[in-house]
Amino acid sequence: MARLPIAQSRLALDDYIRGVLTGDRAMLARAITLVESAKPVHQALAQQVLQKVLPATGAALRIGITGVPGVGKSTLIDQLGSNLIARGHKLAVLAVDPTSPRTGGSILGDKTRMAQLAVSQDAYIRPSPTSGTLGGVAKKTRETIALCEAAGFDVIIVETVGVGQSETSVAQMVDFFCVALLAGGGDELQGIKKGIIELADMIVINKADGDNIVRANHAIGQYQAALNILTPPSPNWRPPVLAVSALHNQGLDQLWSQVEAHKAALQTSGEFRARRQSQAVTWMHELLKARLFETLHANRAVSERLPELEDRVRRGRLAPGLAVDELLALIKQQDDHA
Amino acid sequence: MARLPIAQSRLALDDYIRGVLTGDRAMLARAITLVESAKPVHQALAQQVLQKVLPATGAALRIGITGVPGVGKSTLIDQLGSNLIARGHKLAVLAVDPTSPRTGGSILGDKTRMAQLAVSQDAYIRPSPTSGTLGGVAKKTRETIALCEAAGFDVIIVETVGVGQSETSVAQMVDFFCVALLAGGGDELQGIKKGIIELADMIVINKADGDNIVRANHAIGQYQAALNILTPPSPNWRPPVLAVSALHNQGLDQLWSQVEAHKAALQTSGEFRARRQSQAVTWMHELLKARLFETLHANRAVSERLPELEDRVRRGRLAPGLAVDELLALIKQQDDHA
Repeated sequence: MARLPIAQSRLALDDYIRGVLTGDRAMLARAITLVESAKPVHQALAQQVLQKVLPATGAALRIGITGVPGVGKSTLIDQLGSNLIARGHKLAVLAVDPTSPRTGGSILGDKTRMAQLAVSQDAYIRPSPTSGTLGGVAKKTRETIALCEAAGFDVIIVETVGVGQSETSVAQMVDFFCVALLAGGGDELQGIKKGIIELADMIVINKADGDNIVRANHAIGQYQAALNILTPPSPNWRPPVLAVSALHNQGLDQLWSQVEAHKAALQTSGEFRARRQSQAVTWMHELLKARLFETLHANRAVSERLPELEDRVRRGRLAPGLAVDELLALIKQQDDHA
Repeated sequence: MARLPIAQSRLALDDYIRGVLTGDRAMLARAITLVESAKPVHQALAQQVLQKVLPATGAALRIGITGVPGVGKSTLIDQLGSNLIARGHKLAVLAVDPTSPRTGGSILGDKTRMAQLAVSQDAYIRPSPTSGTLGGVAKKTRETIALCEAAGFDVIIVETVGVGQSETSVAQMVDFFCVALLAGGGDELQGIKKGIIELADMIVINKADGDNIVRANHAIGQYQAALNILTPPSPNWRPPVLAVSALHNQGLDQLWSQVEAHKAALQTSGEFRARRQSQAVTWMHELLKARLFETLHANRAVSERLPELEDRVRRGRLAPGLAVDELLALIKQQDDHA
């Protein structure tokens, strides 16, 4: 009983590594499921797999695309992805949507909303886990990126819905962050979370077709003006604003040229590599914070006391500092009894 | 030896409470110094003082003003503050500048850069502590706000330089967040940190005098356009853009009218109170995070191991997840030996 799990995981470890490195889609899927599992034994194994495939990661271009529902993200990614595959790229699409009640069954949902990619052998679509743990979705997405890179995908698109907590984390794990909007003077922006526009390496106005072209061109001016007075994400890049029609495959080549121009500019300046390195360390710190908080909330004494303390702080009856002192005392207590 | 400190702190506790509640400036200064002290015994006492004066807090209007050096913040606060005092307000100015190598001696520096307020009995100017601890400056500032409110100041201005980490924290502890800029199409913005513009409840273009008036009015249009397509901080408030001349005391009455209009709008909707309540709870969580991290960095085994782990993660030799596992194991180990 004590030896079996170890033997199993030893066996599994090699299977996972070989499977991922040879680009076996079934094993890649299983490895991602392992990464997404909350079970400690699975997590431990997942970390070993990630460490072993680490040398095979980092070669892909990582792109974040965010936009509120209705902006046409699925069509945009489906068409852009198909264009990239036609150029010989291998594409992985990771959908991050903490707000959605998706389950594994939603893979079908994701596949149907990206019809062209769904039937391509050079595309791999993976929906977000339904995990709600602190930094959970981001954690799993970042590690899934690594697995997909090790499996040979050279373009990774991380899709988010622009209304949750995940955009900042996603911007922290990609090389290029793209915000998709609709024309109309910002009304559609009301749904998008604050601060996201300032993360954008590029703004794409979608559905620039038919009667909408005039409004789209007007929107370009508005957003370009806004971006001009906002601090750009990089000193080596001025975020452009593009109007495209994903539905009619118009403007997507220019979109990709901008992605490549951005990569070239940041590589020349050395920022590309430096950014990835600092992203890795920042990620390590985020992960540490998340794990510390998970431990905290797993602490029964704390989770039992927290609601009342929060309520008294909320009503101005208790100094936040004292509430924190009490919580830390509870942790210390339990550590001592452990 | 064991009893003396307790007796002292008992004595001191009452002194501090009475001193602060009666608005004794010397005792207020000592209480703030206590809050700023890193010594555990001082911290414990400070938390008791804060808890005791808590019922006397919350009546002031809390305003954050940020802007890069050269924008004329000191003149703006000095003149605006003098106008408020002329209307019968009592004003506390808390300068937060983690980037500055200030010491206590800088109180003089702060007083000289706000000449009118420096000589007013209804104004209290306090520079930022030089603390660099995690969340340190924000922590001390938030608790200093409470002390100043308990001491009877009904307007609290928290000043930041717009280039550091503190703006988001400050926006989280004030009722109204104001960003001061200069005309010129955003060039001056290059120094200001990303995301700050989107925190603004109001943008103030300063130095709108002489030849600069035309450029200032042009800037109003630019920033108003930008704010119109950015998600506003509150559903009940559209951030205005004002041009003022602090030097000639022009536009500062309109500035204050906007602050009052904002308060009225948010009070009517109930957002004012709700926001303060959630700020208190958010602050409790931030404080908890900071304390957990301080504990972590105070852990010798961790602080010794951290640099190498970070370096290996940076160079892509170690999976961040494994680095975190090792750090958590080190903590667990030390807890067990404690």
